[in-house]
Amino acid sequence: MVLYYSHVKAGEEGHQKVVINSICSYNKERTDNIMKIALINENSQAAKNAMICETLRKVVEPMGHEVFNYGMYTAEDEHQLTYVQNGILAAVLLNSGAADFVITGCGTGEGAMLACNAFPKVLCGHIESPLDAYLFSQVNDGNCVALPFAENFGWGGELNLEYIFEKLFCTPGGGGYPKERVVPEQRNKKILDEVKTVTHADLCDILPKLDRELCKGALSGEKFREYFFANCKCDKIAAAVKEIIGEN
Amino acid sequence: MVLYYSHVKAGEEGHQKVVINSICSYNKERTDNIMKIALINENSQAAKNAMICETLRKVVEPMGHEVFNYGMYTAEDEHQLTYVQNGILAAVLLNSGAADFVITGCGTGEGAMLACNAFPKVLCGHIESPLDAYLFSQVNDGNCVALPFAENFGWGGELNLEYIFEKLFCTPGGGGYPKERVVPEQRNKKILDEVKTVTHADLCDILPKLDRELCKGALSGEKFREYFFANCKCDKIAAAVKEIIGEN
Amino acid sequence: MVLYYSHVKAGEEGHQKVVINSICSYNKERTDNIMKIALINENSQAAKNAMICETLRKVVEPMGHEVFNYGMYTAEDEHQLTYVQNGILAAVLLNSGAADFVITGCGTGEGAMLACNAFPKVLCGHIESPLDAYLFSQVNDGNCVALPFAENFGWGGELNLEYIFEKLFCTPGGGGYPKERVVPEQRNKKILDEVKTVTHADLCDILPKLDRELCKGALSGEKFREYFFANCKCDKIAAAVKEIIGEN
Amino acid sequence: MVLYYSHVKAGEEGHQKVVINSICSYNKERTDNIMKIALINENSQAAKNAMICETLRKVVEPMGHEVFNYGMYTAEDEHQLTYVQNGILAAVLLNSGAADFVITGCGTGEGAMLACNAFPKVLCGHIESPLDAYLFSQVNDGNCVALPFAENFGWGGELNLEYIFEKLFCTPGGGGYPKERVVPEQRNKKILDEVKTVTHADLCDILPKLDRELCKGALSGEKFREYFFANCKCDKIAAAVKEIIGEN
Repeated sequence: MVLYYSHVKAGEEGHQKVVINSICSYNKERTDNIMKIALINENSQAAKNAMICETLRKVVEPMGHEVFNYGMYTAEDEHQLTYVQNGILAAVLLNSGAADFVITGCGTGEGAMLACNAFPKVLCGHIESPLDAYLFSQVNDGNCVALPFAENFGWGGELNLEYIFEKLFCTPGGGGYPKERVVPEQRNKKILDEVKTVTHADLCDILPKLDRELCKGALSGEKFREYFFANCKCDKIAAAVKEIIGEN
Repeated sequence: MVLYYSHVKAGEEGHQKVVINSICSYNKERTDNIMKIALINENSQAAKNAMICETLRKVVEPMGHEVFNYGMYTAEDEHQLTYVQNGILAAVLLNSGAADFVITGCGTGEGAMLACNAFPKVLCGHIESPLDAYLFSQVNDGNCVALPFAENFGWGGELNLEYIFEKLFCTPGGGGYPKERVVPEQRNKKILDEVKTVTHADLCDILPKLDRELCKGALSGEKFREYFFANCKCDKIAAAVKEIIGEN
Repeated sequence: MVLYYSHVKAGEEGHQKVVINSICSYNKERTDNIMKIALINENSQAAKNAMICETLRKVVEPMGHEVFNYGMYTAEDEHQLTYVQNGILAAVLLNSGAADFVITGCGTGEGAMLACNAFPKVLCGHIESPLDAYLFSQVNDGNCVALPFAENFGWGGELNLEYIFEKLFCTPGGGGYPKERVVPEQRNKKILDEVKTVTHADLCDILPKLDRELCKGALSGEKFREYFFANCKCDKIAAAVKEIIGEN
Repeated sequence: MVLYYSHVKAGEEGHQKVVINSICSYNKERTDNIMKIALINENSQAAKNAMICETLRKVVEPMGHEVFNYGMYTAEDEHQLTYVQNGILAAVLLNSGAADFVITGCGTGEGAMLACNAFPKVLCGHIESPLDAYLFSQVNDGNCVALPFAENFGWGGELNLEYIFEKLFCTPGGGGYPKERVVPEQRNKKILDEVKTVTHADLCDILPKLDRELCKGALSGEKFREYFFANCKCDKIAAAVKEIIGEN
């Protein structure tokens, strides 16, 4: 029987690790369903960030949710993010509790989706339509979505975004579709969560092993420090992040 | 029993492990672009398996590819797969080289996509249209796609599938879209591959830690033994699989 | 200069005709934006009528609109409608003011759309998504939509319908998209209305010339008499209809 | 000047008129399935004309079809077309046999579709996807499609166009979907054709009654004279067109 993950360093014992993990494992609880929603854009679609953010705020702020725009803010930003870095940043925000939900994307949404799902505790849907949004929210109950901000994004694209956000957040996630299927659907979701605790390393073990420049770049956006440290609920991840980006 | 990852730093038993890993790490090479394509269906859409398989064969066999239908074959199959198990099975096939590409899906495609992407060396796109298929193939160069077999699947659904398969396989993956962007797109793909070697455990470490019944069930389809062992290129994964499902 | 339509019968003079026309030309005015919305289903998708009607009512009744379900009600209805007959029925309802807006469709929506647009004073959009719905409503300001009730209609299809109805009716038609384009968009709509007064015969001239059984069948649904005569605002069309289906 | 329709009842000068009509009614026969395909763009999407035309040629020329690009060619063309004018031009080309099939569209495709369908002998589908294209071709067997050149037209939009053209023309129209439904589907198509002979005026009666500037503008594109008169198969329509645009 395995009591600890394989990524413990030599010399660490299982028991100690469990204790450490219990400190850092932020347990997402969307209390009152009010969420901190983070927006992350990569470089190819950065010019759309303001429009996306405005659309998101328009839909979710009246519901009580709070939006944190982590950028990129314009195509000319000094700190550029690739879709792989979107995954790193999304993972840091979700694993630490700095965000309850992440909105991201890229040209097609596929790259950002792949990158996000490479990480522990991130369940990132790929969403093209309002129906996708509702079904993903109710059936899969993920904490992240990746959207195509270029493919199929034409005249009225901001309206389609708006409709997607409406259906993604119109009711708390995990309610089941159809509602009478909620029990097996939630069961599968929880089994997947369990599987991911086995298939992924712990984020605090991952961060130092990633390419340093790649990782540092993901965590160096103009507002990252301000938003992240004010909202991070996990000291261990905060420390791991400081280790990478420096104290100040 | 293996208790550590391949990304352990030098000095942490890395050398021995690297040797072991080098035996098992099947390096996907789509030689001549002829691929072994596996089809995996979960229980909710199992009734469509024959139609999906026929459509897939119609498109890819004339290209020289070979299709392996791992089921489920009907809604009444004795061996049932959930979408989480699709992920386990896809990971075993792709990590071992028993398949070069996996076609899977579920009601919306999201669950199967999440499950597949939870595993190392699986890059699973979520594909709704022929355009999605082509862009994912050319930009992201993944080795797996998850399709919605119920959502938006109505009259003519098998035609849309056919068109998706056509565009997914019309040209070797990773060619870039537009073609002049191939270099940065492939660079990002390789960076993501690297990141995934850090964020995921090795499959041979994962399999024994998964819930035994869940994992065994994923590897117990009617044709699994026949197809898998005839095509598996990694002794270590073959051994890990035998450990779970028994010798015969 | 042409003072009258070409479909005036020999012996009718322009002036008299204008008088006659002023009696019968029901001028759609969505007063207070409260509309009578008619639902029309053809035979291939008749089994979905109850679901479509329920979804429509759920969305539009809280807005104050009134729904008239003209059937078909089930696949087994004695009175069957083809998509061509949907066009005849829609034209009778819209030209007479018995309905302000018609929801129809068929397998793909194309047949019903073609049939509706063959008639005067019917501007029927072909709508596949909520974005289609909103843009058609705001840009084209039509009075009819044809939906695909089989193509792309799968799991969650009723939700996509609901979202389409929401965006079709969320604001009065013809508001412009983007709003600052309302003037040229309305200008084009009115030019098209003018063109249609030239390209089509008057409905009262059309009805008697259509195949009698085809036309009678279109106007013989179980509830047609009840709903139509209670809401028809044009004596001339009412008389033409009676001529075809008989007095009682 | 013709003041009456072809559907006048016997005794109302019908005989004489039928004779006239028999001269002009070009009966579309796609001999050997080789077609003259006309492309028509309106002002809002004129900048995409070259790309659309290139994509169309790429797909249909190897099939043996011939493409006639009637413009607009750029957003700055001296002769501007609105979507209403697209309908006039499409009707002239299709009724006269100068084209066997028309590709048109606008921002959403709805305006161009409405305008085309306002005219006799034009059956214009609204096509958003390759599946739409195939089903419309096989089920409805129309002679015109209107595409959304702005809505949902983003990165890879030209690929989606290409796929649409592939499926629209991959096999002769009217083959039925599924094939065993060809008889009732063709029956409905022919009934609709019959209905349209009743609901619309004859094109030669329509043209002189349209707003003169509107109509003249529709027929004044840079290449119209060259392409139209070389391919027109109906002397009566050619004469009606000359009446509007002048002899040279």
